[in-house]
Amino acid sequence: MNETDYTIEPIGVIRSPLTSRKEAPRQADEGAPEAWLEVFDAVAEGLDGIEVGDEILVLTWLHHGRRDVLKVHPRSRVEASLIGVFATRSPDRPNPVGLHRVSVLEVAGQRLRVAAMEAVDGTPIVDIKAVLRNIDER
Amino acid sequence: MNETDYTIEPIGVIRSPLTSRKEAPRQADEGAPEAWLEVFDAVAEGLDGIEVGDEILVLTWLHHGRRDVLKVHPRSRVEASLIGVFATRSPDRPNPVGLHRVSVLEVAGQRLRVAAMEAVDGTPIVDIKAVLRNIDER
Repeated sequence: MNETDYTIEPIGVIRSPLTSRKEAPRQADEGAPEAWLEVFDAVAEGLDGIEVGDEILVLTWLHHGRRDVLKVHPRSRVEASLIGVFATRSPDRPNPVGLHRVSVLEVAGQRLRVAAMEAVDGTPIVDIKAVLRNIDER
Repeated sequence: MNETDYTIEPIGVIRSPLTSRKEAPRQADEGAPEAWLEVFDAVAEGLDGIEVGDEILVLTWLHHGRRDVLKVHPRSRVEASLIGVFATRSPDRPNPVGLHRVSVLEVAGQRLRVAAMEAVDGTPIVDIKAVLRNIDER
């Protein structure tokens, strides 16, 4: 629509014992492990102020997602009719940005240890945000 | 790190009475108005299953954000020391993806009327997701 640059520059990467989408739980509350968020040097000072015990939102680039999928079977109702991906949290969607709410367990320089994270090892991190309790939990 | 394509393809656009960042409230619970989410033809079937009364998450591309900012003054403490953007919800951040939780008031084809939305008119929409109450509100 104009000259806006829509290119994501990853700010870091997920380090996790999960190595394939197949073994990853579908959601964080289904047995997802701890993970490290490794933030790149160029943007590391953006972490200042994040502390152990904080709840944060992590946006990722779900690089194994399929971007050409618009309908999926709702979870646990495979026999049901297809529904639109925007009514779900499927990793398959036109812009494969994942949203994860995690707790900060440890801050080690530009690395954050968090729980629980269902994204696989090597997943690029797009953004980290504070939780706004009055809005995000309304 | 590999051949991943990190380009966002907007799925739609915000239509709002807010026309400048200056008049937009900083957060949705500070007087933000209703808005329409206009989803483009090519991905409109991804909306199937979204109904009036649903709570949804809208990801936007905050095209007025500054991508070279890593530290900001915390809100209402301008005199305080700077903190990292990843500890805030500032629209200025390396990847200017906004996150908005809204209620669906009306579904009209590929347009959704929602409240409350603090993003300005013309803001590109990156994604729409279902709210997962057990995780997003933990």
